[in-house]
Amino acid sequence: MKTTVHNPDLARFVEAGTLYLSAPEAAELVRRHGVTASIEAIANNIRADFGRWADFDKTARVAAHSAGGVIELMPVADAHRYSFKYVNGHPGNTRLGLSTVMAFGVLADVDTGAPLFLSELTLTTALRTAAMSALAARTLARPDSRVMALIGNGAQSEFQALAFQHLVGITELRLYDVDPAASAKLVANLQGSGLRVTVCASTAEAVKGADIVTTVTADKAMALILTPEMIEPGMHLNAVGGDCPGKTELHGDILDAAKVFVEYEPQSRIEGEIQHKPADFAVTELWQVLRGESAGRDSADQVTVFDSVGFALEDFSALRFMHQTADRLGLGERIALIPQLADPKNLFGTLRAGSAQQTGAAGARLAA
Amino acid sequence: MKTTVHNPDLARFVEAGTLYLSAPEAAELVRRHGVTASIEAIANNIRADFGRWADFDKTARVAAHSAGGVIELMPVADAHRYSFKYVNGHPGNTRLGLSTVMAFGVLADVDTGAPLFLSELTLTTALRTAAMSALAARTLARPDSRVMALIGNGAQSEFQALAFQHLVGITELRLYDVDPAASAKLVANLQGSGLRVTVCASTAEAVKGADIVTTVTADKAMALILTPEMIEPGMHLNAVGGDCPGKTELHGDILDAAKVFVEYEPQSRIEGEIQHKPADFAVTELWQVLRGESAGRDSADQVTVFDSVGFALEDFSALRFMHQTADRLGLGERIALIPQLADPKNLFGTLRAGSAQQTGAAGARLAA
Repeated sequence: MKTTVHNPDLARFVEAGTLYLSAPEAAELVRRHGVTASIEAIANNIRADFGRWADFDKTARVAAHSAGGVIELMPVADAHRYSFKYVNGHPGNTRLGLSTVMAFGVLADVDTGAPLFLSELTLTTALRTAAMSALAARTLARPDSRVMALIGNGAQSEFQALAFQHLVGITELRLYDVDPAASAKLVANLQGSGLRVTVCASTAEAVKGADIVTTVTADKAMALILTPEMIEPGMHLNAVGGDCPGKTELHGDILDAAKVFVEYEPQSRIEGEIQHKPADFAVTELWQVLRGESAGRDSADQVTVFDSVGFALEDFSALRFMHQTADRLGLGERIALIPQLADPKNLFGTLRAGSAQQTGAAGARLAA
Repeated sequence: MKTTVHNPDLARFVEAGTLYLSAPEAAELVRRHGVTASIEAIANNIRADFGRWADFDKTARVAAHSAGGVIELMPVADAHRYSFKYVNGHPGNTRLGLSTVMAFGVLADVDTGAPLFLSELTLTTALRTAAMSALAARTLARPDSRVMALIGNGAQSEFQALAFQHLVGITELRLYDVDPAASAKLVANLQGSGLRVTVCASTAEAVKGADIVTTVTADKAMALILTPEMIEPGMHLNAVGGDCPGKTELHGDILDAAKVFVEYEPQSRIEGEIQHKPADFAVTELWQVLRGESAGRDSADQVTVFDSVGFALEDFSALRFMHQTADRLGLGERIALIPQLADPKNLFGTLRAGSAQQTGAAGARLAA
């Protein structure tokens, strides 16, 4: 006898399968909801989810490293929903016409394990990373911050720019990238945004006088994008690009002189800028500041660093938004990722359907 | 400038996206290739992959436990291919019309992180579990084994029965399940298979005189399906159902008196029948026997136990078969799980396509 399913998301899964949102449909979703409105909605979800930090079963992501890059799985769950993201990082991909970062993920029902929602997460990762950066900066940067240096003008940069404009109040951007074409693309994409944009000849020139410095470079290397002499009192550093072992962006002395905030300490110790620091190097998890349990910036002169690596809970927050919004806008399609069985104990029966029935062959005869 | 892609699977991904094989199409694939031929092909892949054990980056699966069950991610990779499986185990699901075990997974390119192949793995997991069990029994059971007791007659049981018939030489099955309807379903599905099938009134009755005992029960509990007085000299025990912390099927004394084989020791110590044993309890990894580096059964009177929990490498082997066969049979469809970008550094540009172009709005204006 079947029990009635009261959870509407689960009921629709039982009836029609997994909701699948492709990359083009995710783009359509963001166009219809608005880019900055989407970033803001995800930031609100992140804030809400970070605010109930203890509710989540958290784990550092599982990474498979190779010469050319890394492939990671990022699971997280509360009592009701489970999510994971698959994401790679391969800086050499662009020469093949592929993105450095490609991602997809699933939101599932904890009570049954049913995969309710399968979504592209390449575009979504850019949105949620920008949302996380802006949320951290709104919490940690000086409230009068208006000028941001943006170092690294690749696939993530437009999203960072718009998030900081609309969620933090940035009005002026100072750009630098080793590839001038990347900066030119960013300038073109920001036409009409209302941001004042200057392309600079070096990182030092871009950083000079900035209130906030965002680094979002892609090389898998121990780079020194920012060095101590560039840093001015009161700056907030949003270090996004350094996010796996051997991939960092900041000179160690910058960290020593700053107050450092992370997402999830066990993961950041492995992947973040602090990977080169001793295990007792002081950091504060951002959720503690968001909940008012720890102080953020202590003074207008203090340098704050958000040592961001990207944590599974941010994808959980983003998947919640994409799922709800796809549902509301009628985007995505239902797919049969899981067999629908008249009798769930009779998986073998699926081999009798279709051509088997048409030929009248018994299941076991097919097996021979 | 784009580099030419020489890997044909990757070239097709770049051109047309991820190959997606749904549950109905996977069933069609198995119907067309044949159930036992599919199990045998997967067993051959497992044998080949276990034979190059050192080539793989292995990790115990990442499990999220809840009151009703477990959701797991199972990644593994060699130098060329990466795979992961998502799989749940929720014994209460059948009363909602859902399967206890539901699964899907991905085969990806290590050099780029590209997700080449997304497939249902619910049916495939049943095939690969049966393939693994039969491969282990062919290696460990007495060569003259003809009679198998099959305890637990749920979704996995037909696959176990057919695998042991065709790969091990079993001619007679003795069934028991606490749910008589499950046994009746199994009997019906095995009509015409050529197997002699008897339904028994108890586990003890089914096990008596058997050469091989397969336990594939679903309860998430420390069950005692097999107790010492049931076990006869020379038996091979294929313990499939005990596969997570707190879920076991064998009385501990049986393990003490037997020679125990596992797939991947670090995972089996957590999840297998040996979870209740001390860390130095002797086990042999099956790949060592397959490679001739360790002995299997030492005598005709010895009791051997394959303490199977299911390891990621088996899914890797199964995904290779499903991918290759889908390709050959023209099954599955290409999906846009990842955005196709004219310029991979211009992810933001995807937000300009479609409706944005139609209205002539600039990307940044959409962002407002």
